[in-house]
Amino acid sequence: MKNNFSKKFSLEDVVSISDFSRAQIEHILSQAQKIQKLSVSKKTQILKGKVVALLFFEPSTRTKLSFASAVQQLGGSVIGFDDISTTSLVKGESFTDTLKMVEGYADIVVIRHPLDGSARLAADTISKPVINAGDGRNQHPTQTLLDLFTIQESFKKIDGLKIGLCGDLKHYRPFHSLALALSCFKNITLYLVSPSHLDLPKTIREILAKSNNAFVEVTDLKKVLPELDVLYMGRIPKEYFAEDESFEQAKNFITVDKVLLESAKKNLKVMHPLPRVTEIAQEVDETEHALYFQQAANAIPVRQALLQELIKVKKHKPVNSLNLISEIQCTNKTCISHQESIEPKIHETVNQKLYCHYCGKLVE
Amino acid sequence: MKNNFSKKFSLEDVVSISDFSRAQIEHILSQAQKIQKLSVSKKTQILKGKVVALLFFEPSTRTKLSFASAVQQLGGSVIGFDDISTTSLVKGESFTDTLKMVEGYADIVVIRHPLDGSARLAADTISKPVINAGDGRNQHPTQTLLDLFTIQESFKKIDGLKIGLCGDLKHYRPFHSLALALSCFKNITLYLVSPSHLDLPKTIREILAKSNNAFVEVTDLKKVLPELDVLYMGRIPKEYFAEDESFEQAKNFITVDKVLLESAKKNLKVMHPLPRVTEIAQEVDETEHALYFQQAANAIPVRQALLQELIKVKKHKPVNSLNLISEIQCTNKTCISHQESIEPKIHETVNQKLYCHYCGKLVE
Amino acid sequence: MKNNFSKKFSLEDVVSISDFSRAQIEHILSQAQKIQKLSVSKKTQILKGKVVALLFFEPSTRTKLSFASAVQQLGGSVIGFDDISTTSLVKGESFTDTLKMVEGYADIVVIRHPLDGSARLAADTISKPVINAGDGRNQHPTQTLLDLFTIQESFKKIDGLKIGLCGDLKHYRPFHSLALALSCFKNITLYLVSPSHLDLPKTIREILAKSNNAFVEVTDLKKVLPELDVLYMGRIPKEYFAEDESFEQAKNFITVDKVLLESAKKNLKVMHPLPRVTEIAQEVDETEHALYFQQAANAIPVRQALLQELIKVKKHKPVNSLNLISEIQCTNKTCISHQESIEPKIHETVNQKLYCHYCGKLVE
Repeated sequence: MKNNFSKKFSLEDVVSISDFSRAQIEHILSQAQKIQKLSVSKKTQILKGKVVALLFFEPSTRTKLSFASAVQQLGGSVIGFDDISTTSLVKGESFTDTLKMVEGYADIVVIRHPLDGSARLAADTISKPVINAGDGRNQHPTQTLLDLFTIQESFKKIDGLKIGLCGDLKHYRPFHSLALALSCFKNITLYLVSPSHLDLPKTIREILAKSNNAFVEVTDLKKVLPELDVLYMGRIPKEYFAEDESFEQAKNFITVDKVLLESAKKNLKVMHPLPRVTEIAQEVDETEHALYFQQAANAIPVRQALLQELIKVKKHKPVNSLNLISEIQCTNKTCISHQESIEPKIHETVNQKLYCHYCGKLVE
Repeated sequence: MKNNFSKKFSLEDVVSISDFSRAQIEHILSQAQKIQKLSVSKKTQILKGKVVALLFFEPSTRTKLSFASAVQQLGGSVIGFDDISTTSLVKGESFTDTLKMVEGYADIVVIRHPLDGSARLAADTISKPVINAGDGRNQHPTQTLLDLFTIQESFKKIDGLKIGLCGDLKHYRPFHSLALALSCFKNITLYLVSPSHLDLPKTIREILAKSNNAFVEVTDLKKVLPELDVLYMGRIPKEYFAEDESFEQAKNFITVDKVLLESAKKNLKVMHPLPRVTEIAQEVDETEHALYFQQAANAIPVRQALLQELIKVKKHKPVNSLNLISEIQCTNKTCISHQESIEPKIHETVNQKLYCHYCGKLVE
Repeated sequence: MKNNFSKKFSLEDVVSISDFSRAQIEHILSQAQKIQKLSVSKKTQILKGKVVALLFFEPSTRTKLSFASAVQQLGGSVIGFDDISTTSLVKGESFTDTLKMVEGYADIVVIRHPLDGSARLAADTISKPVINAGDGRNQHPTQTLLDLFTIQESFKKIDGLKIGLCGDLKHYRPFHSLALALSCFKNITLYLVSPSHLDLPKTIREILAKSNNAFVEVTDLKKVLPELDVLYMGRIPKEYFAEDESFEQAKNFITVDKVLLESAKKNLKVMHPLPRVTEIAQEVDETEHALYFQQAANAIPVRQALLQELIKVKKHKPVNSLNLISEIQCTNKTCISHQESIEPKIHETVNQKLYCHYCGKLVE
C-alpha cells in the first residue's frame, strides 16, 4: 500500500487495489456515500455527454450490468462488447491496437480480460483513464472498494473489526484483494478459514504480517464464528484449479446455513461477492445476517464515485522509469506480457527482488 | 379477468393479461394514445435517470428492440443481456439470485424466459416492478395490449367487432392471450380458424363461453372472411410442436394473399404479431388491409404507457396467502417451479380446482 | 459522381460514396469540423429523444462502437444487434420484414450486411434514412468520408496531393471507395501500389482515367515513397480471396517500418482503416507519420455530421423509374437481389450498359 498521496484522489487509472492509500480509499468511500444522496438532476450532470467503453474480453454479467447502470445513472452512455467472438479481434487485431482505437471513441475505458496484467498494459497504452474490472486471477479493485464500502456502511468503521475470510483462499481473487486492502486499516483481526491445502498465498500473508493487524488461520469455521463481525464467503472457483488439484474434495468445504449461524453474534454480517453456489444456503437470505445482495447493490455508488473522479483526470504520458528491465520474461504463465509484440517490463525492488510491471507477480 | 380494481392502474407488475381488468386495459390504451402526443422534452423527463433491465434468457429481437427504444425515448437507459451464454449463469447462479442482483441496478425489470411462470416468480422475488416479455408458452401480456391498442386505433372501439384468429390456435401464445383479453369486452364475435387438430385449448374456450361474446370454430378461412373486421394471423410455431404432432401437415395451412382478400370487407385489417413466414404474402403489404407493421410500431407507445405507470410503483412485499400449497408439484413440465431450489406454490380455487401460482396452469 | 446537387446536403440516405457530389462531401467535412467545437449542452441537443438502430448482420467492432459513441454524444440513443444468431432471423424472417419492423422503433437505421446491395434495398424499403455501414464487398461510404476528413484536417486541402494506395487493390473495399471519391477532386496524383495480380479493378481505373487526376501503377513502394504526401495502407483481406488465388503469396507484400520511412517526406502521413495485421510495424506508431489512430477517431465527428443531416430528412417514397428492368438477374453472385422474394432491378445507362440497382455492379 502506498502512503505517499495527498488525501485527494490522484490516481489516473484504477488498476490495482495496491495503488490505493488509505486516504484514497476513504475518499472514494466518502464520495460514494455522497453520490447516493444527489438528486436525479445533479446526478445526470456528472457524465453528461460522456462515453464509457466497457470492453469485456471475457463475460461477466454482474460487473458489466453494474458499470452500465452506474454510468447511465450519471447521465453518461456506454459502448463496448461482451463477447470477443463478435469483435474484429477475429481479424487478428492486437490488444493494444484495439485499445488505441477505442481511445478515440470513449472518455473512460473499463476493461475485463482473462490475462493478468492486461489492465496495467491498457493504462500504459492509452491517454484515457482505465478501470480494471478484473484481469485474470490478478486484480478486481472496484470489487474490493465496494466490499469496504459495504463494511463501512454497516459498522460505520473498518478499524478494529473481526473479519473472517472463508473458502478457497488460495485461488479466489476477491479474498486476496480484500486482505491486501484491509492491511491499510488498523486493529483488525483476520480469520483465515480454508482447507489447509487452499490457504492464502505466502506473499499476501507476508504483507499481512507487516501490517497493524492480526491474523489467525483455521480450518473449521465453527471454532471462530462466534467471534466474527463479518463473515466474507467465496465461491470455490473450479476454473482456477489445476488438473491435479482436488476440486471435488474442496467444493463442499462449507455451507453456511441457519443452524450454523445460531452460534454467531446477532450483528454478524455475511458477505459474498456472488455468484454463490452452495456456500450460503438460500434460507440465510431472509435473515438479518445476509448482506450480500446489499453488497452487490453497493457496486453502483462506489463505481460512480470512481467514475466521477476519473472523468476529471488529464493523464500524463507513462514514464518508463529507469529500473524497468526488458531482457527478463515474467514467469507467470498467464501474464499478458507473453503475448506477441508486447515487451516484458520487469521492475527491481530495493531488496533486489524482481516483479513484473504488468501482473505484479514475483519473477521466480 | 379481475374486475375488482379502480379505474386507475394499480398493478405492481405486468405478468399476465389475466391480471388486468377492462378498466385497467382501457387506462393503458388511453395513456398510450396520450404519450404519442408529448413533446420530446416532456417525453424524456418520464424515465430520466432511471434504468430498466432487459433480461432476455432467450433471444427475441423484436421485443428487445422495442422495449429498448421505448425506454430510451422516455429518457431512461437500459442494461441487460440477450444471450445467456455471456452471463455468469455459466458459473451456476440460480435464477432468483440473478434477479436479486439485478434488482440493485435497475428500477424496472423486463424479463423474457423460456420457462412458464418465470415472470411470476421474478415478480414475487424482487421489490422492483417486473414486466413479463414472454415466459415460455405462457404469457406475453404487452403483446396483447399492443394488439388491443392497434384495434382500438383503427376502429375507435373494440366492442362489437368481428375478429378472426387464424392459424395454430393450439400452440401459438398470442392467440391465447388475445382471446382471453377480448373476453373483457362485449358483443365481439370471435371466429376461430384452424386445422381441427390445432384448435384453441379447452380452458380458454370455457372462459370465452362465459364471456359476453360469441365464438365460432371453422377450418376454412374463406367461409368467414367476408364477415371479418379484423383477421389476426399467426405463425405455425415449429418449436412448440411435439415430435408426434404433424408440423409438416400444418405449416402450409394458409397463405393470405391478394386473391383471397378480394372477398374481404374493404375495411378489413390484417394483423400479425410477426415474424411471419408464409401466412401472409408479401404483396399484401402494399394493400390497405395490412396493419401488421403499424401493429409492430405500436409496441412503443403501449410499452411506454406501462413503464410510465410502473416507475411510480412502490411494491408491497408479496404476501403468501394461506391457500398456497407447497406439498403438490405443478404438472406442467415446462413450469419454472421444477427448477432446483424453487418451492411449488399451488393455489386452490373455490370449486376445489388446483392451479399453479407461477404458470397458472391447472394441476392435473 | 453526381454533380447535380446544390451545395446543401440533399441525400435522404447514405448508401454509396458515388451518390455524393464534391459539394456534398465538402459540406459534410465542414460540418464535421464544426461539430467538434460544439459545447456538450449543444451537442446533446442534436439527437435528443431520437433513436438510431445499429443493425449489424455481421460483426464489425470498430464501426459499431464508433457509431454508438457518435449517436450518444449527440444525446441520442441506440438499439440494435450485432450477432444475427441472437435475433428472430432464426425464425425465418425476411430481411425486408426485419427492416419494416425496426422502422417503427428508430429514427435512423444504420446497417451492416454481408451481401452487396443490402443497404440500397434497405433504403428503398423503409421511410427512415438509412446509413450503409458496409454492404459486403461493395460500399462503406462513411469510412471514405472519414478518410477524406482526415486528409483535409492534416493538409488543409485535398486537391493537388500525391496519394499512394498500397496493398491489395483488387479486393480491399476502402481503396475502391477512396479512389472513386478522390475522382471528384483535382490535380491529385494517385500512386497505385500492389502486386500485379492484385491491381485496381478496371471499372474504377476507367473512372479515374476520366477524372482531373493522374494515376501511376507500380509494384514497388520504395520507388514512389519519396513523392508521397499520404500513404494509405490496407489489410490483405484473406476472406475475399477465392480458393485459387494466392493469398499466401500476397500476405507479406509489404511491411512499412521505420527503415522504409527514412526515404519519405518528413510530412508524409500514413493512413490505414484498421485493423492492421503486418502492413505497418508497431514502431511506426510513435512517429510523426502515423495518422491511423487519429483517422479512427475521426469516425466520430464525420458520422455525427451525417447523423445531424439525416435526422432532418423527410424521405420521399422511392420512385421506380421506368428504366428499371426486373426480367434480368444481377450477375454478381453476392448481390442481395438473389435472395428469395426480392425482385431484380436492373438499370440501363445511355450507352446501353446494364447495372444492378442494388449492388451497382455491371451486368455481364
